[in-house]
Amino acid sequence: MSTDRSAADAAVTVLGLGPMGRALAGAFLDAGLRTTVWNRTPGRDRELVERGAVGAGSAAEAVAASALTLVCVVNYDAADTVLRDGPVIDALKGRTVVNLSADTPDRARDTASWAEAHGIRYLDGAIMTPTPTIGTPAAVFLHSGPEDLYREHRPVLDALGGSHTHLGDDIGRAAAYDIALLDLFWTATAGFAHALAVARAEGVTARELAPFAQGIAAILPPLIEEWADDVDGGTFSGEGNPITSAVSSMAHIIQTSEAHGIDAAVLRTAEGQARRVIGLGHGTDGFMRVTEVLGRR
Amino acid sequence: MSTDRSAADAAVTVLGLGPMGRALAGAFLDAGLRTTVWNRTPGRDRELVERGAVGAGSAAEAVAASALTLVCVVNYDAADTVLRDGPVIDALKGRTVVNLSADTPDRARDTASWAEAHGIRYLDGAIMTPTPTIGTPAAVFLHSGPEDLYREHRPVLDALGGSHTHLGDDIGRAAAYDIALLDLFWTATAGFAHALAVARAEGVTARELAPFAQGIAAILPPLIEEWADDVDGGTFSGEGNPITSAVSSMAHIIQTSEAHGIDAAVLRTAEGQARRVIGLGHGTDGFMRVTEVLGRR
Ligand SMILES: NC(=O)c1ccc[n+]([C@@H]2O[C@H](COP(=O)([O-])OP(=O)(O)OC[C@H]3O[C@@H](n4cnc5c(N)ncnc54)[C@H](OP(=O)(O)O)[C@@H]3O)[C@@H](O)[C@H]2O)c1
Ligand SMILES: NC(=O)c1ccc[n+]([C@@H]2O[C@H](COP(=O)([O-])OP(=O)(O)OC[C@H]3O[C@@H](n4cnc5c(N)ncnc54)[C@H](OP(=O)(O)O)[C@@H]3O)[C@@H](O)[C@H]2O)c1
Repeated sequence: MSTDRSAADAAVTVLGLGPMGRALAGAFLDAGLRTTVWNRTPGRDRELVERGAVGAGSAAEAVAASALTLVCVVNYDAADTVLRDGPVIDALKGRTVVNLSADTPDRARDTASWAEAHGIRYLDGAIMTPTPTIGTPAAVFLHSGPEDLYREHRPVLDALGGSHTHLGDDIGRAAAYDIALLDLFWTATAGFAHALAVARAEGVTARELAPFAQGIAAILPPLIEEWADDVDGGTFSGEGNPITSAVSSMAHIIQTSEAHGIDAAVLRTAEGQARRVIGLGHGTDGFMRVTEVLGRR
Repeated sequence: MSTDRSAADAAVTVLGLGPMGRALAGAFLDAGLRTTVWNRTPGRDRELVERGAVGAGSAAEAVAASALTLVCVVNYDAADTVLRDGPVIDALKGRTVVNLSADTPDRARDTASWAEAHGIRYLDGAIMTPTPTIGTPAAVFLHSGPEDLYREHRPVLDALGGSHTHLGDDIGRAAAYDIALLDLFWTATAGFAHALAVARAEGVTARELAPFAQGIAAILPPLIEEWADDVDGGTFSGEGNPITSAVSSMAHIIQTSEAHGIDAAVLRTAEGQARRVIGLGHGTDGFMRVTEVLGRR
């Protein structure tokens, strides 16, 4: 989607210049927006200022420069440190904050209450793709909070490229999706780190394994669709791949890993959950039956 | 690659008719090969026999019908039960076995020694894609063992569709890749099961989450390439995403999960490994530094 005139004329502030904050500010600059930036530790704005950004001397000064402020720091403790400060609160009155820092749905809800109490307009969001995607069609942004507020700022947000999805008025919804999606991401990433350790012990380099690991990533999308149907439908068919076959594979991986002195605790834990499913009498079901057992009281 | 005349004329035996064994035999039938099948529990061959397969009365009878036998059972304990039996050994003498059951590299090496001692020609293999891919271009097969033997049977193997890669003469190599790739696969799958449990507790259905989860799968291939370079090069740059940011995200997921009474032990374990990396002084590195710590003695 191309940026319309109102966006190109618009001003935006970015608080937090870690890798992601810098990527966001860079995309705004590329789109021709008047971009003001600030970061707790000074100096992080240097390259952005060279590219035309306004480097503010304080967070309050930064938020005063634009109708819309994006916050992108490590988590909500950090965001609170930046936002819940007298001069910043005063400057934000009547303006909009979009918090793109990752944290829990509860923290998003808490921030919404705080914002409302101070006359600050608030949207929560999450970024689901790495920094190189920002400003490109591959970027994925999730948003939640008042839909009219989202629509109002959508032209500026579109300057970040990619796809933007409004998940509803419930302010915690973007964080809920974020939590679940990062759960998949970080668990898979931990699995790959472990896979590379085991491969190395077996004399296989990471670069040798990589094309086949990419093949594993490629088989996930159709499986994700199938698994989602299983879990929403409560069916869990193991016809194509029973959980008994899964635990057998897991046991081989654990055994090979530990035989090389490599910690296999992550997979040991996952295997234990799967064996519990079998113990509960669901051995002919598919692996996704684990979902039911994780929350069993 | 199209099946050449020698393959279409050829005979092949499949031992083990679980979901994968049936898929293999079905692909051979579709390619017009004379296909003999056998399974420990009778009756599993019914549909295949209706489609033209020869249902053998015993494993020995089955292997005697073809120059090439594929074994596809749950693991090597099961494969040993089938293969290491007097009449089967006698029938296999001078013939070739390709073991496509999943297990450890050590078990593959052990089976190779056993095969050599009995005058049986032996290749080891692994299947990296689910049953619906078999007979299609999406199937991925890995092979290891004597290259001339692999070349000799390649026309028959090609009838299974997909890509076939010979990883070298070391008989354990296909299992080594298999172990590492299934490590990624099962850990990621466990992560998705957990993600769906957390999403549900937050009022997000599996089908709502699925398209975004597919987006997470889509960002993995370029990251896998980057991570492989990190691990082989020992660089571990956290420039785009430091491990301190990762543990912060992991902590939110764990907190949200446990607040809903959902077991978060898999991610807790992965988080602990990442925190150990930070504790060892590598907090500005990327997550893949975990690979170095997993095998630390
Ligand atoms: N990088 C990615 O690929 C990616 C992808 C999707 C989402 N995200 C999310 O984007 C957010 C930012 O991530 P990031 O990659 O830029 O790096 P990060 O390491 O998560 O965050 C670094 C930023 O947080 C600031 N910060 C930390 N503690 C602070 C405090 N107490 N007070 C004020 N500022 C504080 C840092 O300021 P200093 O410079 O002063 O330390 C810096 O601006 C995170 O929530 C992350 O989960 C990142
Ligand atoms: N399904 C997939 O998507 C997939 C993908 C890639 C690789 N694989 C691999 O392919 C292999 C076969 O998998 P599968 O999906 O067909 O199902 P599976 O549940 O792993 O294996 C079932 C087969 O193993 C046989 N079996 C089990 N114990 C036995 C024993 N003690 N003696 C003789 N036979 C025994 C079963 O015979 P009975 O019918 O008599 O029990 C059946 O033929 C496994 O190693 C698996 O890891 C599967």
